[in-house]
Formats: sequence, C-alpha cells, structure tokens
Amino acid sequence: MQLYWAQGTPNGRRVDIFLAEKGIEMARVNVDLRGGENLREEFRKINPFGRVPVLQLDDGSHLSESVAICRYLENQHPDPCLFGSTPETAAQVEMWSRRAEMNFFLQVAMAFRNITGFFKDREKVSPEWGEISQETAAQALPIFDARLGESEYLAGDAFSIADITLCCAYDFAKAVKVQIPTDLPNVNRWHAALSERPSFSA
Amino acid sequence: MQLYWAQGTPNGRRVDIFLAEKGIEMARVNVDLRGGENLREEFRKINPFGRVPVLQLDDGSHLSESVAICRYLENQHPDPCLFGSTPETAAQVEMWSRRAEMNFFLQVAMAFRNITGFFKDREKVSPEWGEISQETAAQALPIFDARLGESEYLAGDAFSIADITLCCAYDFAKAVKVQIPTDLPNVNRWHAALSERPSFSA
Repeated sequence: MQLYWAQGTPNGRRVDIFLAEKGIEMARVNVDLRGGENLREEFRKINPFGRVPVLQLDDGSHLSESVAICRYLENQHPDPCLFGSTPETAAQVEMWSRRAEMNFFLQVAMAFRNITGFFKDREKVSPEWGEISQETAAQALPIFDARLGESEYLAGDAFSIADITLCCAYDFAKAVKVQIPTDLPNVNRWHAALSERPSFSA
Repeated sequence: MQLYWAQGTPNGRRVDIFLAEKGIEMARVNVDLRGGENLREEFRKINPFGRVPVLQLDDGSHLSESVAICRYLENQHPDPCLFGSTPETAAQVEMWSRRAEMNFFLQVAMAFRNITGFFKDREKVSPEWGEISQETAAQALPIFDARLGESEYLAGDAFSIADITLCCAYDFAKAVKVQIPTDLPNVNRWHAALSERPSFSA
C-alpha cells in the first residue's frame, strides 16, 4: 500500500494522525497541489474528483476520501479502536465526526478558500461566502466546547476519529488565520491533551 | 424508537428510503422547519445544531446526522446490507457515499439555499455562492455518469446507501430547479431502476 498525499493539508494530517495512532507505517507519494498535479489527467485516473489523499491498495486499486481510507484501515488494524467499539459508541463517533465535518471542518475550508482565493487559479471564489463560512465555523465552536465540558473526548470517554477531525480543522483554522474563538475553556483543555499525543506533534 | 423528521427534505427522504429498504416501521414526529421549530431551545436539547432527522432511542437518548442514524440501524437490522458486506465493499460504499455527499448533495443544498434564500430569515445567504455551487453540482454529475457506465450501482454490484444519497440529492435538485444535466444516459438508466423500487416511490 502507498498513500498519495499532500503535506500541509488538513485531510492529509487527518490520515497521518490516524496512521500514527494505529502504528501503521505507510509509504507516501507527495502530490503537488499548488502546481495542480491533482487536476491532471494522470491523477484523475486514480481519483476522478482530483482530490487527495488516495490510498493505493496492494491489488493496485485506489481508495479516496479520508474517512473511507481510515475506516478501511480500521478494519485491517482494529487496535486501537478509533471508530467506536460497540454499535452505540460507533453511532456517537459517527454523529460527532459528521458534526465536526459539516459544521466546522467544511466551514473552515470554505472560509480559507473563499477569503484568500488560494485556489482562484482553478475555482471560482466568493469572498462574501468566505465571510459567512467563517462566522458559521466560529458559531459552531461553542457547541463543541459545551460538549467537551461534559465528556473527555468529543464522542465520549474514548479518543476517536471525531477528535482527529475536529482538532485538524481547529489547528488549520488558526494556521491560515480563519477567525475563530480561541478562549473556549473546554476546547482548550481538550486541545492541550491532544497536542501531547505523539501522533499530533509528528 | 421514534424519528424527529421533516417532510420534503432530502435528508428526511434518505432515512425514509433506508427504513423502507430494511422494512423497519418507525414512529415519526414531524418538525416544522419552515416555522423554525428546529431552532427553538426545546429542540436544541435533542440536537444542539438544530437539524433533523434525529432518532430517539429506547433509552431516551438522541442520535442525529442521517448517516449516523442509518449506520446504527444497519447494526440493529443487518439484512439487507446497505453499507457493504466486506471491508473492501464497505470501503467502496463509504468512498462513493462521501463523493456523492461532498460533490453533489451538499452543492445542491447550498445552491438551493443561496439562490432562493429559502431560509434567509435565519441565515445569511450569498446568491453568488449559490451560482458557484450550482455549477459545481452540475460538473460532478458526468463523473457519476461515467461511474454508472461501468457498474450497476454507484458503489459496485450491490445497491447501497451511496445510491440513496445520490438519488435523493438528484431528485431534490430537480424538484427545486437547481440546474443540473438531465440527459446523462447512465444516470438515467440508474435513476429509472431506483425509481421502480417501492422504497423510492413511498
């Protein structure tokens, strides 16, 4: 197996942390997003949507979408469990992962791309929508803070992929200067604990 | 168990079709989205993000996010399998489900909300972003068409939740007049086959 991947992207980091938590070593092929390598015909053969990361399996087939890659690897390497170990905890992990994705990760990504026009050589952007997305992301964070005031991790007592998703988006927002509240006490407690994990500092 | 749900929404229909395919009978509580019932404090106790559908479990706890609800029900009622029966097919289902969600379902929803201003009493909208999202949705559909030219269903040989997601978004786009291509031969073949299933016409 090998991973087509781009350094510095929040989705690349999601998979990196997942692999590190599992203790899986994986060969990487860096894809030059800035140069548009992901949009060339050659790359579209492995992912017609032109996105990274993409996992190449041993039979030569390709799997894209970060969470599909992680879930596949969870099946291959069940320990430690990162998607929930019972139907009930798995449901909590899925719910909180999707809340983190739709209400925060995606909003941060749209804010970044539309405010800065980082990819305006290849996509239409709307600065107006970027500002709206930034507000939506900022408004979601206190809801996650309230949740983290009642449980150690986002989906409950156990660390899971929901934490990886929210934390990657949070760190990315700060790195690219999307304006979000940084004074939320439970988010700060949780973020400090995650940052001590070797997988997050790698 | 009972389902808090809103008629006429593509996420409500996703869960409806999933339940019908499984043969699960479920009590419904209709939530008045137009009247903003989902944004009131009472409803936010069951979903702080104010969204439907929400599944109330027998212990009184609540599970939101359509796919979290469906995956939980898949665990409770494994037959027929709608999330893939092996790690490999499950990975394909997850990949195609997410491609359908991120590149089409979400784009259609953003086009509808931002072009029509349907919820402008409660959210900021950008008609400019609505037009961009409409183009993104339209551009994704030929990629799904190419895929459906090489396999019967979106994720392979078996009908799955990926088909439910793509078809609900496709039908919703047409119903609310989001401009998408309707002359794609493989999409049309697939759509005609799905529309004959009792679950889709319910």
